[in-house]
Amino acid sequence: MAVQTAESTPNSGNPANATAAAVDLGPAAALSCRECGHRVPLGPVFACEECFGPLEIAYDFSAYDTEELRRRIEAGPANIWRYAPLLPVPADVADKPNINPGWTKLVKADNLARELGVTGGLYVKDDSGNPTHSFKDRVVAQAIEAARAFGFTTLSCSSTGNLAGAVGAAAARAGFRSCVFIPHDLEQGKVVMAAVYGGELVGIEGNYDDVNRFCSELIGDPAGEGWGFVNVNLRPYYAEGSKTLAYEICEQLGWRLPDQLVVPIASGSQLTKIDKGLKELIELGLVEDKPYKIFGAQAEGCSPVSTAYKAGHDVVRPQKPNTIAKSLAIGNPADGPYVLDIARRTGGAVEDVTDEQVVDAIKLLARTEGIFAETAGGVTVGVTKKLIEDGVLDPSLTTVVLNTGDGLKTLDAVAGTGLTATIRPNLDSFREAGLA
Amino acid sequence: MAVQTAESTPNSGNPANATAAAVDLGPAAALSCRECGHRVPLGPVFACEECFGPLEIAYDFSAYDTEELRRRIEAGPANIWRYAPLLPVPADVADKPNINPGWTKLVKADNLARELGVTGGLYVKDDSGNPTHSFKDRVVAQAIEAARAFGFTTLSCSSTGNLAGAVGAAAARAGFRSCVFIPHDLEQGKVVMAAVYGGELVGIEGNYDDVNRFCSELIGDPAGEGWGFVNVNLRPYYAEGSKTLAYEICEQLGWRLPDQLVVPIASGSQLTKIDKGLKELIELGLVEDKPYKIFGAQAEGCSPVSTAYKAGHDVVRPQKPNTIAKSLAIGNPADGPYVLDIARRTGGAVEDVTDEQVVDAIKLLARTEGIFAETAGGVTVGVTKKLIEDGVLDPSLTTVVLNTGDGLKTLDAVAGTGLTATIRPNLDSFREAGLA
Repeated sequence: MAVQTAESTPNSGNPANATAAAVDLGPAAALSCRECGHRVPLGPVFACEECFGPLEIAYDFSAYDTEELRRRIEAGPANIWRYAPLLPVPADVADKPNINPGWTKLVKADNLARELGVTGGLYVKDDSGNPTHSFKDRVVAQAIEAARAFGFTTLSCSSTGNLAGAVGAAAARAGFRSCVFIPHDLEQGKVVMAAVYGGELVGIEGNYDDVNRFCSELIGDPAGEGWGFVNVNLRPYYAEGSKTLAYEICEQLGWRLPDQLVVPIASGSQLTKIDKGLKELIELGLVEDKPYKIFGAQAEGCSPVSTAYKAGHDVVRPQKPNTIAKSLAIGNPADGPYVLDIARRTGGAVEDVTDEQVVDAIKLLARTEGIFAETAGGVTVGVTKKLIEDGVLDPSLTTVVLNTGDGLKTLDAVAGTGLTATIRPNLDSFREAGLA
Repeated sequence: MAVQTAESTPNSGNPANATAAAVDLGPAAALSCRECGHRVPLGPVFACEECFGPLEIAYDFSAYDTEELRRRIEAGPANIWRYAPLLPVPADVADKPNINPGWTKLVKADNLARELGVTGGLYVKDDSGNPTHSFKDRVVAQAIEAARAFGFTTLSCSSTGNLAGAVGAAAARAGFRSCVFIPHDLEQGKVVMAAVYGGELVGIEGNYDDVNRFCSELIGDPAGEGWGFVNVNLRPYYAEGSKTLAYEICEQLGWRLPDQLVVPIASGSQLTKIDKGLKELIELGLVEDKPYKIFGAQAEGCSPVSTAYKAGHDVVRPQKPNTIAKSLAIGNPADGPYVLDIARRTGGAVEDVTDEQVVDAIKLLARTEGIFAETAGGVTVGVTKKLIEDGVLDPSLTTVVLNTGDGLKTLDAVAGTGLTATIRPNLDSFREAGLA
C-alpha cells in the first residue's frame, strides 16, 4: 500500500472547513510518530513525513485528578463513551449519533477454569455482545468521530467480513454515506450481512490485495476527496478504539490489572493498543502499578508473529495465510514488531494453534461457558490451553482471554456439530436411544 | 398438549428435596391462577387444578420502600438481575452461574423517526444484544433459577430455533445437563447453533407438533423425572423474564412510562408480561401512574390474534402458519385472549404485515439505525409504519418498538440484498460505475 504522509500526498483528504485549529477531539493533542516522535497536527494522515513510521494519538491528560476522573467514568454511559476523557473524541460524544459499542461482558469463566486447571481466576472478555457482534464496532465508532471532525461525508474501507458490517451499520446510524470495497466473489452470507445497511457495497474483480491496492489509489485521487477510510487515513483514530478493551477489563475487575491477558493477533494493532491502554491507566493512577503479561495468539496457518517470536527475531517475515480463522488472516501484520516487543517486555509470549485446535476450543468454550465464539475466539482459548499445558501461562494468576467475535459469523467452522440422536416421537424410542 | 396440574399428574417432576417450604424464590409467594385466582404453593406446575387456567407468580412486594427499591435497582448489575427484587429468584441470584442477559440498548431512533414522521420520540429496544442474541435469554435465565430451586438436573424444551440455542447456552454455563428436542429435518445452520453448546440435541421424526406432543408425554412419565421443561412445567417462572423488558424500557427512559409500545406476538406471553411489568412499576410508585397503549404485531401469514382483534372477537381461532417470521409462527397462541384484552383495555390495537413488508422493514431499520433485526423485528417495525400510516398510532407520542432477535439468524429473509456494483480494480472503472 502506498505510504501517505502529512504533506507528501496530492490529496490530503482534509476538506477546507476542517483545519487543525478547528478540530475538537477532546484530549487528543496531536499525532506523534511511534518511531521517531515527530509531531504533526491532528488530521487524516497515518504515516510520519520524516521516517514513514506509524502516527499515533498524543494526549494531554495533565489536567485530570485521578479520583474525579474515576467518578466521571463510573457515572458515564454503559458503552465506550464512559472513557471519552481518554479517547480522541469530543466531550459531548455520547450525544452524537453513533453505534455506541462496548461495556461488553467480562464473564467469570469458572467452568472453563476448572477444565484448564486455572486457579487464579479466569475471565472471558466477550465482544460478541457489540452491536454488530465483533470488536470492530469499537474501532469504527472512533473512526466515525474523527470523520465527523475532519468533515468527511463518506465512510469507506476494504474488508472481507466483520469490518464491512461494522462500517455499514455505524455509517447508517451516524448519517454518513458508506462505500465499502470487498472482493467480488465473497460468500453470499457475508455479502448480505454487509449490504443490509443500505450503503454502497462494491465488489472488486480481484483478491483482497487488489482491493487494498485500489483503495490506496482512491485515497490519492480527487475522486476520493471527502472519503474517510477507517483503517487507512483514519487509522490513528480508529486504532485507539482497542484501548477501551483494556479500560473495561480493568474497571470490570474492580479497577485492577489482570496478571495475564491472551489477545488475538491480526495486524497486531489491538494487542499494541491494549498495552497502551493499560499503561495509561497506571500513569493516571486508576490502577496499581504492577507487572502484567500479554500473550499473543495466532492460528498456525497464519502465524508470522509467533514464528518470529519463537525464532527470537525482531522482524516479522510475511506469510501466505491458510487458516479457518479468517478474521486473523493477515500475513504481513503492520504492528508485528511492536507485538514482539510487548510480549518480550512484559514476560508474555506469542503462540499458535492448528485449525483443529481452534475448532476444539470453540466447542470447549461453548460447552463450559455458553459462549459461541467465532474462530478468533477459538484461537485465543486454544492458545490459552496450550500455554498452560506448556507451563508458559501461570494458572495461579488472574487471566483474561479475549473473544473478539461471534460464532454465528463463522458457522462453517463447526459445521460438523449436529444431532446427538434421532428418535421417533414416543417414549419407547426415547428409552432405546439411552436418553433417559 | 396434556394439561398438567398441581395434583393430577402421575409425576409432579418435583424431587423430594425441593418441598415448597424449602423453595427460596425471593418475592415469589405462590402460584395463582390467572382465571380463577386459586393459589397453590410454588412448584413445577403450570395449570390450575381447579379450572385448568394458566398459573402465574403471585408476589409479596409489601415490604418495599419505593426510593430504596429504586436505589437498589440502580446500584445493581448491568443485566436483568438488577430487578431481582421483582422476579421469582433468590436475592443472591447475581452470584450464581447463569447467562445474565438483559440491560440491552434502548436506541433513540431519530433517523427512523424522521422516515416515519414520529415527532414524540421513537426508541428501539434492541434485544439482539443478549448473549445468544434473542429475548429468549431473558426467559431461560429465569427458568434456570426455578430449575435450581426445584432440584432439577436436566433442562429441556421443544424448539425450532432461538429457544434451543438459549437453553443450550444457559444450561452449559449454569451446570445443567440439557436435552433439547427439535424436528429432525431443521436447517443445518439452526442445528449447529443449538448443538455447539454440547448438550443433547435430539431430532424427532415428525413436525413441531409431534415434538410438542412427545415432550408432554415425557413430562408425565418417570423417564422425565428431574427434567425441567422451560416452556412447560417451568413456564410460570420462565414467562416472568419478559417483565424485565418493561422494567428496562422505563428505567432507560429515566423512570418514565412510554406512551406507546409495539410488541411482537407469538404465544402472546411476552406482551402479556410486559403489561404486567408496567402495572407493577406503577403500583410500586417507580413510575408515574399514567395511561399507556400496547400494540401487538403479527405477520399476515400467522395472524390469529390480529384477525380476532379486527373482527371484534374475544376468542382466537387457530391458523396454520405460513410466514418467513418463523419465531412468531404460533398458530394457536395460548395467551391470545389476554393480548386482545390488553390491546383493547389500553387503547392499543393488533395489526399484521405481509412478508414483503417484513423484509422492507428489516431493511428500513438497518438503513436508518444500523440495527440488523431478525424477521420478528421486521414485523414490529413494519406494523409501526402501517399503524402510523393508518392514523392508529399517534406520531406525537413517545413510542418504543421491540426488536427481539438478530438478523444473522434469519439471513434468508434478506438474501436478495447484494452488491451495488462490481468494478475492476482501477479508478476508470470506479468512475464509470458512477460511484465518485
